[in-house]
Amino acid sequence: MSAHKKVNVAMNGYGVIGKRVAQAISMQDDMTLVGVADVATDWRMRIVTRNGFRLYGATQEHAEAMKAAGLDVAGWLQDLLGQADIVVDCTPRNFGAKNAELYRQAGIKYIVEGGEAHELTGHSFNAEANYASAIGRKATRIVSCNTTSIVRTLTALKRAGLLRRARGTLLRRATDPWESHLGGIMNTLVPERRIPSHQGPDVKSVDPELDVITMAAKVPETIGHLHYWSVQLTRAVQRVELIEAFRTSTRIALISWAAGLSGINTVHELMADLGRPHENLYEVALWEDMLTVIDDEAFYAYLVDNQAIVVPETIDAIRALTGLEESAEASIQKTNGSLGISGRLIKQAA
Amino acid sequence: MSAHKKVNVAMNGYGVIGKRVAQAISMQDDMTLVGVADVATDWRMRIVTRNGFRLYGATQEHAEAMKAAGLDVAGWLQDLLGQADIVVDCTPRNFGAKNAELYRQAGIKYIVEGGEAHELTGHSFNAEANYASAIGRKATRIVSCNTTSIVRTLTALKRAGLLRRARGTLLRRATDPWESHLGGIMNTLVPERRIPSHQGPDVKSVDPELDVITMAAKVPETIGHLHYWSVQLTRAVQRVELIEAFRTSTRIALISWAAGLSGINTVHELMADLGRPHENLYEVALWEDMLTVIDDEAFYAYLVDNQAIVVPETIDAIRALTGLEESAEASIQKTNGSLGISGRLIKQAA
Amino acid sequence: MSAHKKVNVAMNGYGVIGKRVAQAISMQDDMTLVGVADVATDWRMRIVTRNGFRLYGATQEHAEAMKAAGLDVAGWLQDLLGQADIVVDCTPRNFGAKNAELYRQAGIKYIVEGGEAHELTGHSFNAEANYASAIGRKATRIVSCNTTSIVRTLTALKRAGLLRRARGTLLRRATDPWESHLGGIMNTLVPERRIPSHQGPDVKSVDPELDVITMAAKVPETIGHLHYWSVQLTRAVQRVELIEAFRTSTRIALISWAAGLSGINTVHELMADLGRPHENLYEVALWEDMLTVIDDEAFYAYLVDNQAIVVPETIDAIRALTGLEESAEASIQKTNGSLGISGRLIKQAA
Amino acid sequence: MSAHKKVNVAMNGYGVIGKRVAQAISMQDDMTLVGVADVATDWRMRIVTRNGFRLYGATQEHAEAMKAAGLDVAGWLQDLLGQADIVVDCTPRNFGAKNAELYRQAGIKYIVEGGEAHELTGHSFNAEANYASAIGRKATRIVSCNTTSIVRTLTALKRAGLLRRARGTLLRRATDPWESHLGGIMNTLVPERRIPSHQGPDVKSVDPELDVITMAAKVPETIGHLHYWSVQLTRAVQRVELIEAFRTSTRIALISWAAGLSGINTVHELMADLGRPHENLYEVALWEDMLTVIDDEAFYAYLVDNQAIVVPETIDAIRALTGLEESAEASIQKTNGSLGISGRLIKQAA
Repeated sequence: MSAHKKVNVAMNGYGVIGKRVAQAISMQDDMTLVGVADVATDWRMRIVTRNGFRLYGATQEHAEAMKAAGLDVAGWLQDLLGQADIVVDCTPRNFGAKNAELYRQAGIKYIVEGGEAHELTGHSFNAEANYASAIGRKATRIVSCNTTSIVRTLTALKRAGLLRRARGTLLRRATDPWESHLGGIMNTLVPERRIPSHQGPDVKSVDPELDVITMAAKVPETIGHLHYWSVQLTRAVQRVELIEAFRTSTRIALISWAAGLSGINTVHELMADLGRPHENLYEVALWEDMLTVIDDEAFYAYLVDNQAIVVPETIDAIRALTGLEESAEASIQKTNGSLGISGRLIKQAA
Repeated sequence: MSAHKKVNVAMNGYGVIGKRVAQAISMQDDMTLVGVADVATDWRMRIVTRNGFRLYGATQEHAEAMKAAGLDVAGWLQDLLGQADIVVDCTPRNFGAKNAELYRQAGIKYIVEGGEAHELTGHSFNAEANYASAIGRKATRIVSCNTTSIVRTLTALKRAGLLRRARGTLLRRATDPWESHLGGIMNTLVPERRIPSHQGPDVKSVDPELDVITMAAKVPETIGHLHYWSVQLTRAVQRVELIEAFRTSTRIALISWAAGLSGINTVHELMADLGRPHENLYEVALWEDMLTVIDDEAFYAYLVDNQAIVVPETIDAIRALTGLEESAEASIQKTNGSLGISGRLIKQAA
Repeated sequence: MSAHKKVNVAMNGYGVIGKRVAQAISMQDDMTLVGVADVATDWRMRIVTRNGFRLYGATQEHAEAMKAAGLDVAGWLQDLLGQADIVVDCTPRNFGAKNAELYRQAGIKYIVEGGEAHELTGHSFNAEANYASAIGRKATRIVSCNTTSIVRTLTALKRAGLLRRARGTLLRRATDPWESHLGGIMNTLVPERRIPSHQGPDVKSVDPELDVITMAAKVPETIGHLHYWSVQLTRAVQRVELIEAFRTSTRIALISWAAGLSGINTVHELMADLGRPHENLYEVALWEDMLTVIDDEAFYAYLVDNQAIVVPETIDAIRALTGLEESAEASIQKTNGSLGISGRLIKQAA
Repeated sequence: MSAHKKVNVAMNGYGVIGKRVAQAISMQDDMTLVGVADVATDWRMRIVTRNGFRLYGATQEHAEAMKAAGLDVAGWLQDLLGQADIVVDCTPRNFGAKNAELYRQAGIKYIVEGGEAHELTGHSFNAEANYASAIGRKATRIVSCNTTSIVRTLTALKRAGLLRRARGTLLRRATDPWESHLGGIMNTLVPERRIPSHQGPDVKSVDPELDVITMAAKVPETIGHLHYWSVQLTRAVQRVELIEAFRTSTRIALISWAAGLSGINTVHELMADLGRPHENLYEVALWEDMLTVIDDEAFYAYLVDNQAIVVPETIDAIRALTGLEESAEASIQKTNGSLGISGRLIKQAA
């Protein structure tokens, strides 16, 4: 594929992930968003057209219903797929498996999100961990928000030769702000029934060598996930070595508790102040001043924005699958630049 | 003042209101934001300079502290006031009174926010209600978020000759998202000790003729205030007359519960989807399909974004005080256009 | 029915209301709780037998399942009804209508709760408002928690000849503590779609003369409902007259905000401190020091414990239907005494 | 001390811990609560006398203020101490240090709570871990709620020879229900600045051999603390061995997630259903079916009721210091029996 040719990308699903991915695609100079398919007919679909994207029904029936609702509809999914080199599926959990058949029939590449099983695509993606292995593939799966954050951080430690095994406790936001009037938890905590929770094992879909066990609980907030880690290192190290290891990832932002980012709400406010769309935190926001090393053990915590963290990974996956970029570093740098991703969100006094 | 001359505006205070007003000023073509003064020295001040605004200490000592913290400081408040035609004071409650003396000494016009007493300026401002009376004044006060919403809605009913008296119950967000880690209420409701609560009487600072009584309670959420009104009309009317009356305000947005905006969180998500900075809802978002008229009584509810609703009022007040615009309508239209304010936020099927 | 004869009461449904009613029945000296029927098979049913109540399956199948789960089961609903003079139905909304047929076939009296329609029984009950009209009836319906509180307070004003019309805003707890891990609302407010909300009209099922209109919103807490009222009186009165009117009800407790009961959580803590089972607040807890009269209008607020307020009403309804007591006052006094209900929960300095 | 002699106990401080301890003392047959001292003058003090306890001012001034507020006051702290063999100090953090001087002057034994430093008494108490070492001492300190739970669980593992080291993540309730209208956190999580958090090191005040590191975050709920543990065992074990180890503690209750106790709110509801005063959970409630062993690592979670867990420990400490009981087992059994403490709260199907 020539450097001058843009890749035509279709989106299927315009929910909390889909709308962020769509916007991110529209900010890339090597991609064209050819359209967005969905099943809704309400005001959310007017946002699609208001943003200048072409709107398609997920089926012909949905397209008809959209027309009946006064929406400006360009056709249905099949029409959309016909114009695309690749489709990003951001439909609800388990829909991707069904849709994949359509994508294969249309003869185009596809990306599904973390709600789907690894087996659907046979490949699970994380830009810093395994970009190269996705180049030219027919399909991949972006691992979930939690898993993405784990892979980013542990891959950084592994690259530095420091990682032996990691044990994590995940405080999961109970629901997204968008739907927090429909369901959620109130004045309680809900432990996940199974230990290990699924996030740990899912990490192995990207890197089977990682020794990770996770436990998880739902907590009554909507901002994001907070992870606590206890990591057995390969050797006793200085604290600074760990920080340097994390700095090798461009998608881990080191933040300071003492300098004002002392709650996940303040980190969120910083995203708003930075003018980010949807107040997106694409980075793993890891508290540098909380990070503690005791002999050969490391302890740290970070915030994961479950609505945004997979957005840059998805952009990179588009480049990998379509061969737009051979180099992981080049793609990551391009994505980071377009979205303003930075390892140092804002300067903070120590 | 000629149409070609821009007004130089100074900001004092860069908190939740101040940062929104600063950004709004920077989006006007007839104003120049000459600088921002504050007392903080942390990352929030880096946002000021990152946004291209000049930063000043509130005092010389604060300017020194800012320099010591590595911030790019242009001087202190007095330096800033020397360059300004007008200053907007968004400092915390009761600071405005002290600052007003400085503004008077500097010989410039000034605007304070609703935390200050009416007596400080002798004039309380709402663009649609009393723009004309503010033209050329030395100073005015933008009434609080709650009061602004009440004046907007009741003035609309008064203009239509429909208003006799209004009784409101105000569900007030307990704290702002930014500081929700420092204080708030949890799994409880806190009624305000005094009935009437202060919002009702404060309405009279803008229009002494309005017959308004309010009761208020703090509720455990951070999104905004939800007002419920029971209004005695001057006569039995059709529902549509009331809707038409509200439509005469360009800052009341009629929204539909049934079409998807059924919680204050969904209205907030719409602001994010519209790409508004800080997800600002400048309008009173009033549920059209909930509005009920029974004989000569009207019942309705609306959402107030306490962080954003006074922003357009402040912009208009700058124009009124400095004489940039003689016409309320012209100023309102200009402000609305620059901020994307609309009585119809997004098309919703009935 | 002789004074020495106890009434045999059956309970159907052992949820948040049922378990409280069962306990209250067991505290009366003129009633015998002959058994409790339900559909669950888990630990909650062990509470039934642990409390010394006989346990029945709602159907034979449920009885079998209970046995299989190792529970000590005495039979099924039909067996239970055969031993009872009256049954209290506390099954989920709309189940009561189906069950009523069983109760009629069993030839016993029955009481349903506020989730059922008035038409099911043709009578809706409130002890202070219409006890006499229920004496000897086959069936009645205890109006809902919200409606019970409205009838109590407005009946008190009506008795004093003060009530013209009442307009209320109801802040409804989003879900019960027991199930707050399964669903709820988070950091949002959800206005009820319809105005008037159903509570106002439902008041007329007890007293058709009451002129009441209500609006309602769900709020993110689990403690109870907070009502705000704006009441048009028949004439201008002194504040003390209104307080005296409320004092004529033994189930309105006047509390003081200034003396420490300044949030609904503190009122709840008082119930715990009083040693009440399940921290039950049976009374309407009305803030005396917030109550304001302006000319011929009254404004006030109160807390409703949605899990407990109908418990004493249900006990009184048992007496009315079975003819245990001819006098409303006598029954109310008996019930109040057994449950510790008091118009003055605790002495508070003004 | 003869078996017929009761110990006279004074309470200083009647807050969330104090009122629970006072009630527990009044339920023991070998102790007499001679009085309660406090500084408040509001309705909370009426609960003291309503419960039949004699009320004292913390100082003469407080006693005067209580009298002025119409309370029935028996004197002040010095009067109270004169009648007591031992005093339990449940005043706010850091007050205990000052009060200890008074207790020493009065020549009586004293117990402080976990907010005080270990150095104040030179001994930190946990019934199952070190009862014997407290016998006859002048003073001890009951370790905090979090620390108590850690000592209970890890001591059980240590007794079984299974414990090598333990790494915990503590989700701490942000504030108590009683004061949740005054401060709390909303829709956010607040990580504790320091790792290790203080709970881990504090464990060593009871047992210096325990290898424990903890991290902690405040979460927006008021029910209790949820702990997650990752424990390195001394050897690979079967899951059942771990459960047996925990069963050796009479104050660890094994509960089942799958059988209905799937949120911390449902465990709390069970306490209400059991009729416990203040819905107290004295036990560590550990999810048996979540507990997982992988080779030589164990993973589990439990709930800590921060308002209640130290109550039985305090009762036992009274016996140890005063020599009422020489045997830890005897005291624990006595306390457990009086409070209904049980390792099997309610039978749950697997």
